[in-house]
Amino acid sequence: MKLSPAIEQLVESLKRLPGVGQKSAQRMAFHLLERDKPGASRLSDSLKHAVETVGHCNSCRTLTENDLCSICLDERRRDSGVLCVVETPADVLAIEQTSQFKGRYFVLMGHLSPLDGVGPSDIGLDKLEQQLQSDNIEEIILATNPTVEGDATAHYIADMADQYNINTTRIAHGVPVGGELGYVDQTTLGHAFSGRKQFTR
Amino acid sequence: MKLSPAIEQLVESLKRLPGVGQKSAQRMAFHLLERDKPGASRLSDSLKHAVETVGHCNSCRTLTENDLCSICLDERRRDSGVLCVVETPADVLAIEQTSQFKGRYFVLMGHLSPLDGVGPSDIGLDKLEQQLQSDNIEEIILATNPTVEGDATAHYIADMADQYNINTTRIAHGVPVGGELGYVDQTTLGHAFSGRKQFTR
Repeated sequence: MKLSPAIEQLVESLKRLPGVGQKSAQRMAFHLLERDKPGASRLSDSLKHAVETVGHCNSCRTLTENDLCSICLDERRRDSGVLCVVETPADVLAIEQTSQFKGRYFVLMGHLSPLDGVGPSDIGLDKLEQQLQSDNIEEIILATNPTVEGDATAHYIADMADQYNINTTRIAHGVPVGGELGYVDQTTLGHAFSGRKQFTR
Repeated sequence: MKLSPAIEQLVESLKRLPGVGQKSAQRMAFHLLERDKPGASRLSDSLKHAVETVGHCNSCRTLTENDLCSICLDERRRDSGVLCVVETPADVLAIEQTSQFKGRYFVLMGHLSPLDGVGPSDIGLDKLEQQLQSDNIEEIILATNPTVEGDATAHYIADMADQYNINTTRIAHGVPVGGELGYVDQTTLGHAFSGRKQFTR
């Protein structure tokens, strides 16, 4: 059986969401059309509104519909002198939830990946260099992902920061809190050993 | 950190999809806004179009944007004299994928559930009764779910069919093909025993 065209089209569109295949998309489409048409209309409007208005923050490049995001607008955070470099807006959210970081961010929206044709200017490193020159930055915290590309990107930025005599740190990698040693992969465990700290009591 | 309003609103709307929580909704929103704005626009348009046009088939009550769905329009299927009663449009899809059933459907869009205030007319049983009276139906196949409500609904429809001297059958319940006895629940296994058939060689 073929679904009727409007439903088929909706299912195809839902399949473009990450993690949604044919079955989930059908389930979503039927749910919205059978039980939640107001929700479907709201989703349609939100999507349209977001696509039309959301762009990048002029300072940190994160997603926002304003010229500057709420963090870059906060003067105390701008003047803190600490800049945290992350790969995606989702990373900003995750770090904000710890409530531990009071500086500002720079969001690369990706990582260096020469094989895919992603060079320094594609992830805004030219813009970052301008900020290193003009803004009063004392420390750069590199919070890119601990992957090959994330590490390479971190190295590149550290080299750049060196030219402007800015202190560079990298977030710690090791055994997750609550994790069990037996289930941690060997690279992480290697990091945990090489990054060990003096035991304090 | 609060997300900017347009993104926050999009995340809230995405959370209305079944099986999507805060984290998945954020991931979907960031994915669409960072990497697939055309997909987001297409989804928005498909939702709007589907909400505006999709209604119920006048004959079988399934979801369609036309007066009659493609199955009800098929004369050979209409004239087959076999009517399969299912709970949802997704069930129709599942049965169609077997390519074994050549009759037509009646989609209840739910099941009898007196505690939730769902009575016979809410699931279109008045309409079904009209069809039993006027159409030339020889057999009703009850394919409602093997749950308490689905079974109760099947019993109700079987009683109704009796009044019009229409033969009623229920799909078989038993051990799924490829399943292992040890992992099958006891009710299913009970059904498999009581529904056993003569072994043919």
